[in-house]
Amino acid sequence: MRVLAAALLALSAQGVRAEDGYDLWLRYAPLEGEALERLETLSAIVAAPSDDPTERLAVSELMNGFQALRGRPDEIWLGLLSRPRDPGPDSITNSFGLGCSDQSVGGEGAFLVRTQGDAIWIAASSPIGCLYGAYALLRELSLGADPATIDIASAPAMPLRMLNHWDNPDGHVERGYAGRSIFDWWHLPERLDQRMIDYARANASIGINAVAVNNVNARAYMLEPRYIEKVKRLADAWRPYGIRVFLSARFSAPRDIGGLETADPLDPDVRRWWQDKADEIYAAIPDFGGFLVKANSEGQPGPQDYGRTHADGANMLAEAVGDRGTVIWRAFVYSAEDDTDRAMQAYNEFVPLDGQFADNVIVQVKNGPIDFQPREPFHPMFGAMPNTNLMFEAQITKEYLGFASHLAFLAPMWEEALDADTGHGGTVADVIAPVGMAGVANTGSDRNWTGSDFDQANWYAFGRLAWDPTLPSEQIAREWAAQTFSRDEDFIEATVPMMMESREAVVDYMTPLGLAHLMDTGHHYGPGPWVCDLARPEWNPCYYHRADADGIGFDRTESGSNALSQYAPEVAAQWSDPETIDPAFLLWFHRVGWDHRMPSGRTLWEELVHRYDTGVAQVDGIAATWAELGEYVDAERFRAVSENLAIQQREARWWRDASLAYWQSLNGLALPAGADPVPESLEHYRSLSFPEAPGN
Amino acid sequence: MRVLAAALLALSAQGVRAEDGYDLWLRYAPLEGEALERLETLSAIVAAPSDDPTERLAVSELMNGFQALRGRPDEIWLGLLSRPRDPGPDSITNSFGLGCSDQSVGGEGAFLVRTQGDAIWIAASSPIGCLYGAYALLRELSLGADPATIDIASAPAMPLRMLNHWDNPDGHVERGYAGRSIFDWWHLPERLDQRMIDYARANASIGINAVAVNNVNARAYMLEPRYIEKVKRLADAWRPYGIRVFLSARFSAPRDIGGLETADPLDPDVRRWWQDKADEIYAAIPDFGGFLVKANSEGQPGPQDYGRTHADGANMLAEAVGDRGTVIWRAFVYSAEDDTDRAMQAYNEFVPLDGQFADNVIVQVKNGPIDFQPREPFHPMFGAMPNTNLMFEAQITKEYLGFASHLAFLAPMWEEALDADTGHGGTVADVIAPVGMAGVANTGSDRNWTGSDFDQANWYAFGRLAWDPTLPSEQIAREWAAQTFSRDEDFIEATVPMMMESREAVVDYMTPLGLAHLMDTGHHYGPGPWVCDLARPEWNPCYYHRADADGIGFDRTESGSNALSQYAPEVAAQWSDPETIDPAFLLWFHRVGWDHRMPSGRTLWEELVHRYDTGVAQVDGIAATWAELGEYVDAERFRAVSENLAIQQREARWWRDASLAYWQSLNGLALPAGADPVPESLEHYRSLSFPEAPGN
Repeated sequence: MRVLAAALLALSAQGVRAEDGYDLWLRYAPLEGEALERLETLSAIVAAPSDDPTERLAVSELMNGFQALRGRPDEIWLGLLSRPRDPGPDSITNSFGLGCSDQSVGGEGAFLVRTQGDAIWIAASSPIGCLYGAYALLRELSLGADPATIDIASAPAMPLRMLNHWDNPDGHVERGYAGRSIFDWWHLPERLDQRMIDYARANASIGINAVAVNNVNARAYMLEPRYIEKVKRLADAWRPYGIRVFLSARFSAPRDIGGLETADPLDPDVRRWWQDKADEIYAAIPDFGGFLVKANSEGQPGPQDYGRTHADGANMLAEAVGDRGTVIWRAFVYSAEDDTDRAMQAYNEFVPLDGQFADNVIVQVKNGPIDFQPREPFHPMFGAMPNTNLMFEAQITKEYLGFASHLAFLAPMWEEALDADTGHGGTVADVIAPVGMAGVANTGSDRNWTGSDFDQANWYAFGRLAWDPTLPSEQIAREWAAQTFSRDEDFIEATVPMMMESREAVVDYMTPLGLAHLMDTGHHYGPGPWVCDLARPEWNPCYYHRADADGIGFDRTESGSNALSQYAPEVAAQWSDPETIDPAFLLWFHRVGWDHRMPSGRTLWEELVHRYDTGVAQVDGIAATWAELGEYVDAERFRAVSENLAIQQREARWWRDASLAYWQSLNGLALPAGADPVPESLEHYRSLSFPEAPGN
Repeated sequence: MRVLAAALLALSAQGVRAEDGYDLWLRYAPLEGEALERLETLSAIVAAPSDDPTERLAVSELMNGFQALRGRPDEIWLGLLSRPRDPGPDSITNSFGLGCSDQSVGGEGAFLVRTQGDAIWIAASSPIGCLYGAYALLRELSLGADPATIDIASAPAMPLRMLNHWDNPDGHVERGYAGRSIFDWWHLPERLDQRMIDYARANASIGINAVAVNNVNARAYMLEPRYIEKVKRLADAWRPYGIRVFLSARFSAPRDIGGLETADPLDPDVRRWWQDKADEIYAAIPDFGGFLVKANSEGQPGPQDYGRTHADGANMLAEAVGDRGTVIWRAFVYSAEDDTDRAMQAYNEFVPLDGQFADNVIVQVKNGPIDFQPREPFHPMFGAMPNTNLMFEAQITKEYLGFASHLAFLAPMWEEALDADTGHGGTVADVIAPVGMAGVANTGSDRNWTGSDFDQANWYAFGRLAWDPTLPSEQIAREWAAQTFSRDEDFIEATVPMMMESREAVVDYMTPLGLAHLMDTGHHYGPGPWVCDLARPEWNPCYYHRADADGIGFDRTESGSNALSQYAPEVAAQWSDPETIDPAFLLWFHRVGWDHRMPSGRTLWEELVHRYDTGVAQVDGIAATWAELGEYVDAERFRAVSENLAIQQREARWWRDASLAYWQSLNGLALPAGADPVPESLEHYRSLSFPEAPGN
């Protein structure tokens, strides 16, 4: 045999598949070195015999996670106690122990994880606490914690930790950038995709406990019996993971599918129809969460169609649901007939209703007063409705932050809003603590769930913040990156800063200095600052930037819309003066000249160009950093992230160039010295068209 | 420690994921026993050093497959020969050997796999033959063949083995039942999903060598430069797998995106536009396959808009493509203005054009004259156009056979058509052998690719039949089931008969005895035999069944449309007499009374009820068989198949009940003694509505 060279190839069959991201942050990559040795001392899981499905899940999650972290499918002893009692620290050694009926550990979901001698003991007052404790323990071990010193006492900061899916029953996801809906309504109830179980598991691992399964722009037929059967199958599958199902309800359902002439919330037949509908749902799903409603907003029907208020509508549904559940009523409204500053309309409609909503009604308020822009000030309703249950609505899917291809870690954005002092005696997080947080999901049928690997971090961060809004974004980034990619400290040290700066980079290359809503029409993809002629004023980017030859920005002071007056005086004060305002909010609240002098010493125009260029440079920097990290990440995900960054680099430039071309067409100013020229004409940027843009 | 019972749990971390179907028939599950021992003698792969990507793929596929079949990631020696020569049987022992430039092995894709002494030798005249040979060898080993006796000489029966994707650039798949499109056009060219590589690999493993990537109802903008960039990235990724890319072209593109006033194929500007477009594409993709065109059919633009013929249109594009590629022109046409029997229109339009098409034009003809019904006679164009390149179009996606949830193995249906004697001196397979076969793909973003595990078998079967139309369906079923689920003979003995009877069951519970096109409007989901009032006659099921109080069926004899006359006389003769015709085609060709006496001795009405009941019973039988097979299949896929069968059981009954309710409303006849009553009123069945049905 004439062989010149022979090479040992390390290819293995598994190598072909590499990692596809499906496992999310629950990979439990094998530990090494000291961390692995420390784990070797643990050899059994001890629990009271239980038929509770959640408790059994906690045991199997521990078992699987433990085996995965050890890197070997070793057999692990499951010790069953002789009688249903809690294993105390005296009774177990070299083991994990679970006690899920320890009434000294208070509240829904709360748990203790303590090391006692050679054993690790999870205690909770209910099985779901044990399951959360199991995930918390595995997270710590996965991050390399020493089992000997683990000591966690944790309880959720707020009762409702919820995802809202804008998924339509036909599989389309509004503002979805990760493929098709994960919900296979067509084949339910007979067929339950494995993904539905893995989805519930991922949610439970970060403490999410409620899911609204359909779009707030709802189809009435999803309240029909054939859909109740489908939803029941989901609810049954998710119950062991502690997840309650909510349905988005179309307010006109009594007319659409009920055969009534009206949907007037004060009409007795309408009230009876909803009561019967609620009874029908609860008969199938005893722990049904309730209804989520978008009413009298963007063309959706609502109580105002009959001269009734939001409170009339919400309370009618709340009565139907009764003490079995909750009605969540969205505050995202703006009217076609109202020429008030759009940023003010929700406050104007809802604040006068404070105190009028039933106890089991929650009003769900977006983080900012417009619509999930890369940066907005916090919503003025927070703190302004002390007698109403207010919930925080975040958008995990990146409708306005580059879809799924741009890297933008959103925790710093949410942290900014949650930490904001409302001026009414607490932060936004304080206001919502008795109620909850909802996040508009970014999941889809893509194999990695969220369209890109880094967007998994936003799902993770949302859950972690809903559990504990005081968690620093940086800690969340570290946790996520270590579990998802690599716990190597060099990798973490490179990746976390990249994540932390990423959202600010998007702000800079899309809408710097307080600009907002400059995206192109409908699909919200790419720049469209030149769009000025759509039917409703507030659909137009021009409405938001108000730029002309003299200046740019939306005057929301007394001399303008006075949206500032919706904030508490000391909050308003920090934003009222264009000279002293944080430049990040300048053009949100003020209209200033192109030559307005910024704290940096630059003119506004120079600063604007500087910001665009900073954003572009940051994306280039992130891509350069990532390019060095190949050794820490499997080839499949490494390439996927690299290719997304290439898209982001191209599109960041596009945003910068198209925006500058347009501003220059108004102000006639040259670019500051040293700035790269704009490579194409404004006409070129205006001519680009993307009829197939996703998520519309 | 108070432990009563202790159990060793066999759960492993991998166990959580089980199998999700993504690996298709390429699982290469580890061999056991004697088959494994036989494989142990092989320890190296020997190949000439090569930079050819396809040849390198062949080596790595062998390496990975070999390791997987051994069940251990053993290192395998890769022996590189000292100079680029073919390793002959004398030069290798205990090895696989590859020789990919053996000119004695003729033709595109042909290969030999021979065992010589202790070595297995793959020989081909080109790298793609080696890759096909590698897959063939792995298939044989995977089926348990003895390496010592392997002896395969194989060559494809036809040059074009093609998939047609009805995928739109926005991700929707027309007649797709497996989620969203697998093509992520939005993120191309920067981002190439791993799925695109795995897709090419799956195709190559069954010999598919061409793919039309977009819907025949085409968007013109897919011919724009930004899409050519995207298509180029795919073509580059697929080239090593031997797959050429085709684009569906909208005939009006010169008007839609070219700025011309006309798309008249005889207009010099139009001709130049297409010439330039073809040049532009070939500059990016030198091996671009060509264009696939649906023209003057179902509202698509075409040459008839300008008074030109199909030949004028096709030849104009063929000239633009030149000897670089091919134009595939679909024969699926029917006109809004033509009251000829729809089954006759394609023949009437195309047969007179025989001999007028350019050499690089192919006319693509559906298996039957209507539209992919559960059963149709073969298309009369086959054999009737001796001077035209005719290609066979099959529909792998099950638009009319229960979407992705019904188990219907389609190989017997295609075999029926391919084996049909045209009466013009050969079978359908003979007619198409110089040209090829196209299958409308059933792939989607679902993790298992095809929406259900058993629908993978139809993708597989299509590829295998395009390679070799003489392969018996049963052999294909055996191969597929063994590779996909289990090679245990008990499993195969139960599963293959289930697959083999499945399509006939669908025929029986949907459209027995030659009935066709009774599906509900638009989405083609569920029964709609009562639909009679749609604008165009041939959109209505009533057009096809022609049932009334007296009888049922479409008279296509001389006394009716005389569609029979489009077949060769001896073919027509076998179908011309309602007394002697195969009952499977009775109502396709004849209108008969409800009391028509069938060969079984039953009246037509009794026979119809009997067929519906037979179909329902067969599905019940398949479900009962599957329920016993849990030990052979992983839990995830076992449950998925079981749940699909539950859907099919329910829907088979629905078809039977709704159809019978409607026929009874016409004929007033009671059900035969012993038949189950119809549980609901006809009004109930008519009232059912499915606005979210997929694939429309």
